[in-house]
Amino acid sequence: MSDSIDLTGKSERYKKGIAYYESIHGAAGAQSFDALEGIAPGFADLLIEFTLGDVHSRPGLDIKTRELLTVAALTAMGTANLQLKTHVDSAMNVGWTKEEIIETITQMAVYAGFPAALNGFFAAAEVFAAREAAGQEA
Amino acid sequence: MSDSIDLTGKSERYKKGIAYYESIHGAAGAQSFDALEGIAPGFADLLIEFTLGDVHSRPGLDIKTRELLTVAALTAMGTANLQLKTHVDSAMNVGWTKEEIIETITQMAVYAGFPAALNGFFAAAEVFAAREAAGQEA
Amino acid sequence: MSDSIDLTGKSERYKKGIAYYESIHGAAGAQSFDALEGIAPGFADLLIEFTLGDVHSRPGLDIKTRELLTVAALTAMGTANLQLKTHVDSAMNVGWTKEEIIETITQMAVYAGFPAALNGFFAAAEVFAAREAAGQEA
Amino acid sequence: MSDSIDLTGKSERYKKGIAYYESIHGAAGAQSFDALEGIAPGFADLLIEFTLGDVHSRPGLDIKTRELLTVAALTAMGTANLQLKTHVDSAMNVGWTKEEIIETITQMAVYAGFPAALNGFFAAAEVFAAREAAGQEA
Amino acid sequence: MSDSIDLTGKSERYKKGIAYYESIHGAAGAQSFDALEGIAPGFADLLIEFTLGDVHSRPGLDIKTRELLTVAALTAMGTANLQLKTHVDSAMNVGWTKEEIIETITQMAVYAGFPAALNGFFAAAEVFAAREAAGQEA
Amino acid sequence: MSDSIDLTGKSERYKKGIAYYESIHGAAGAQSFDALEGIAPGFADLLIEFTLGDVHSRPGLDIKTRELLTVAALTAMGTANLQLKTHVDSAMNVGWTKEEIIETITQMAVYAGFPAALNGFFAAAEVFAAREAAGQEA
Repeated sequence: MSDSIDLTGKSERYKKGIAYYESIHGAAGAQSFDALEGIAPGFADLLIEFTLGDVHSRPGLDIKTRELLTVAALTAMGTANLQLKTHVDSAMNVGWTKEEIIETITQMAVYAGFPAALNGFFAAAEVFAAREAAGQEA
Repeated sequence: MSDSIDLTGKSERYKKGIAYYESIHGAAGAQSFDALEGIAPGFADLLIEFTLGDVHSRPGLDIKTRELLTVAALTAMGTANLQLKTHVDSAMNVGWTKEEIIETITQMAVYAGFPAALNGFFAAAEVFAAREAAGQEA
Repeated sequence: MSDSIDLTGKSERYKKGIAYYESIHGAAGAQSFDALEGIAPGFADLLIEFTLGDVHSRPGLDIKTRELLTVAALTAMGTANLQLKTHVDSAMNVGWTKEEIIETITQMAVYAGFPAALNGFFAAAEVFAAREAAGQEA
Repeated sequence: MSDSIDLTGKSERYKKGIAYYESIHGAAGAQSFDALEGIAPGFADLLIEFTLGDVHSRPGLDIKTRELLTVAALTAMGTANLQLKTHVDSAMNVGWTKEEIIETITQMAVYAGFPAALNGFFAAAEVFAAREAAGQEA
Repeated sequence: MSDSIDLTGKSERYKKGIAYYESIHGAAGAQSFDALEGIAPGFADLLIEFTLGDVHSRPGLDIKTRELLTVAALTAMGTANLQLKTHVDSAMNVGWTKEEIIETITQMAVYAGFPAALNGFFAAAEVFAAREAAGQEA
Repeated sequence: MSDSIDLTGKSERYKKGIAYYESIHGAAGAQSFDALEGIAPGFADLLIEFTLGDVHSRPGLDIKTRELLTVAALTAMGTANLQLKTHVDSAMNVGWTKEEIIETITQMAVYAGFPAALNGFFAAAEVFAAREAAGQEA
């Protein structure tokens, strides 16, 4: 409980966003926004409210599908290595296996080229190794 | 039957690719590669064999998931308007609703920006209109 | 007044976003979101609330600077021709001259290459012509 | 001769650039910069001086190789359809065949994905048709 | 004075470019092109002449506006992390505050997505830290 | 000979792909796919069969031209730094000089902007240094 983020004065959208985030990463995870707050004050709020509270929480697609779509898109874009790693981790937290992640990235070779897929694999491999080191389920 | 593509002399990978294609678009659909053959002889074979026979036919993800991943990636890339329309159509043929397509494109606003999502909506709207005009199920 | 968008039940963020929009495009302009509403219900609200209400309305940069930054970014990205035209128009509405728009796009040749600048010029020229045809100040 | 561009007061770099351009497109071709001059005064000079006079005229690679490199790069980028068509035309003027252009674009499927290659083929096909209509050698 | 770059035999465009550079980074800064000269002989000259002498020195926009446009564009492109850091530094040298830089990058979340903005923040934070370590004005 | 990759049970396309690879990198080089196999089982086969066996081995363009096209495209894309380094190395193995590689990257400044060229130079410089350290011909 002591790890939970302080919700005093936060909007309903923020609370919805944090709930989404914690459903994937656990209560401790949300502390990871602290570094961002130090660089761009207020941006973490915008991010949580809009990307998680407004968009990812919409009812039209389930959370598991949404996370795999994000892995696909970030792999194809090729400009978001750090965020791709975060979402590979998220995707595994919501139930996708290593094999399904690799399959998603493989498919991106068709649409964005082999370098995009290769860089996606390398990002995913870092996440797989970190999870293994942390004793998380693969 | 008369619409079926001629498979004489084609590889197993080609046959697997065409089977994948026809499972989505019907036997008549595969004739759409004829124009491509006129421009880049042999490329349609490469495309069918590799993208459909080798990649999309892999067992690790189901066909329905694969098509939505493609819609997400092409929306995020923003450089493949024609192919996005093809895959919005494919995605609906394998069972995704208009609402789910729109939801997927909406999510891309987060990762690739609002213009990418807006252009995705406009592409999707063209497909929705064409399907409606053709009396296809929405 | 009859052209004004209906604000009943809308959030404060939405009202701030629409106020920003109308300060640039006038009350009639906001009707342009109707077509979008037909394709992706609710997305226009997200767009107005987040992009205009949350971001563009922030106090840290003035409206005039913000619009030129957008012209620069969309030119450099090269994937948002329609949105570039909208923002060339916005930029002129908030006081940038044709010459300053062209200068901004010229600078993008350095960072994103000559094709990006050329396509930016062609987009801007369409807006300049439309404004002239509509009797708007250049 | 009457089609030749007026070189009065132009820099050596400009003259070198125009000479490069005319060696590919003939004397009449350079008039195509007039429309650009109307939109972005002075930019055609920058373009001719820098891209053609400074870069393409450098001795380290021959003109024929340079044009094919440009076709490859513009196909892979996917954001420069108009410029790709210009350079497919240039590449054919300096001696590459339709087959070699198609081969170059085919190779881009590997690095930038199948949509990039497909859009490259469609651009090339427009150029091939225009050249055929104009009675130019294929 | 001993730090000043040797201008013997250099073009007027080069001198204008170096003057622009030194007005932002001081006389010592221009030595930073030496490493580039070792890799790609002559390219630093092209860069200084064209990007700084020809483009950034044009009268249509002031130097301060130009640097912020560059920060916006490089953030949105997402493929130029090193150059983004250079231009965040430049932008601060010509008078933009940390807050205004962050605001510019924040706005890019709208047009290029949240990953582009996040990576922009991380690049900017590195520059802020380096300036602080060097005792430069924030 | 002991370094040669095991071809038992491999397709003709695979053998053609490996032959292409070994003609550039030598027999030992192909072992570099082992790490990839650990991350994405089977993907190295897809890559060798399709990119090298199907595409690069096509007769329409010679191997030397193909490698330089790849350097151009990867530089312009700006999202494939690792793959760019691999292909700078390949291009030198098939006979391009350092000067020609640098010239190719220089030309990309025109089409994809100066940051793309600068990042290309830095990638190439790493390869040049590694080759020098390994006593390879420059």
